[in-house]
Amino acid sequence: MAQCVIRYSSLMSRWQPDAQRRLERAALELFAKQGFADTTVPQIAARAGLTNRTFFRYFADKREVLFTIEAEFPGRVAQVVASAPTSSTPMPIVRYGAVAVAAAWFEDQREYLTLRRAIIQSDDGLKERELSKQAALTQVVTDGFIDLGFGHGASLLSAHLFMTVLGLSVDQWLDDAGRSLVDCVHDTLRVLETVTSDGAD
Amino acid sequence: MAQCVIRYSSLMSRWQPDAQRRLERAALELFAKQGFADTTVPQIAARAGLTNRTFFRYFADKREVLFTIEAEFPGRVAQVVASAPTSSTPMPIVRYGAVAVAAAWFEDQREYLTLRRAIIQSDDGLKERELSKQAALTQVVTDGFIDLGFGHGASLLSAHLFMTVLGLSVDQWLDDAGRSLVDCVHDTLRVLETVTSDGAD
Repeated sequence: MAQCVIRYSSLMSRWQPDAQRRLERAALELFAKQGFADTTVPQIAARAGLTNRTFFRYFADKREVLFTIEAEFPGRVAQVVASAPTSSTPMPIVRYGAVAVAAAWFEDQREYLTLRRAIIQSDDGLKERELSKQAALTQVVTDGFIDLGFGHGASLLSAHLFMTVLGLSVDQWLDDAGRSLVDCVHDTLRVLETVTSDGAD
Repeated sequence: MAQCVIRYSSLMSRWQPDAQRRLERAALELFAKQGFADTTVPQIAARAGLTNRTFFRYFADKREVLFTIEAEFPGRVAQVVASAPTSSTPMPIVRYGAVAVAAAWFEDQREYLTLRRAIIQSDDGLKERELSKQAALTQVVTDGFIDLGFGHGASLLSAHLFMTVLGLSVDQWLDDAGRSLVDCVHDTLRVLETVTSDGAD
């Protein structure tokens, strides 16, 4: 474990292409140690052994360091849309997509996501930024469903269902170290099915 | 119509208890006329014929003027919870609640909500504040379902469904002057039923 850290660090300091990841790691460590509000861009850059100018090449501000994971989301959604089973209704795609994204993307990032969530929850501005990013991602998912040929209303609702299932599952998973994220997604999908299965009026 | 406006205005200037509403109206007019960013608290107070100090008695900042409607929400949710039909599953309550809130609360505020939405959409900070308020309201609704005896997971999902149905319906209604909000809610509920009615895996 210690060896991994050392290898990781030496790799970090050697290759300029890893500047972004070095800045992310330095920022996360400082946010956790001294608080988000009290951490400055020069401190982050210094800890990463880089200049402020390099920082601003990768990030618009110190908040943005926490949202690189969401920058990958549109690409992931495109992959899911391309590999989704053919279906005349969107719900099987919601289920398939939530499991696929959970398995491929989040499962190995538990430690990072736990720390990230704690930092975001500590600051109102970060919470607002997180909600704003999620709203943008919901729009990306809506467009994905529209691309698959579903109507506008069904696509909007399916995208909201997808984001809700994924978001609640991630929260549940970060609260309970004993379970996998995919298990939590299956659980949430079961509860959703129970909630929505009663007859309409 | 003109007479209503005159009567409303004269009422406004007569009664101190209406200070909050005068400030709201003045702010909305200024935001619409000269933009949110370029409007200051002293301008709002002056237009309402009141002091800055009075403004800050009612609102923490100029953004908050746009969110008084959401301050009424917890009370509305409590009413809906108290009057909801007895049900062993939450979905009938989601449906009942969305229609009840739409009919009682929003239906006569089309003009105000259209203007408010345009102002919020014009400013990233306002959009973030709106999302943050909605997240807090989702928590209030979740607590409402928990109070009715539903489990935590089902309550969370039901609250998200409720907020999604209501939010998408309001958007649809503000886009289409020819329909009532209650009609839009029924439409959204029908689409939700179609989306979620296929068998699970």
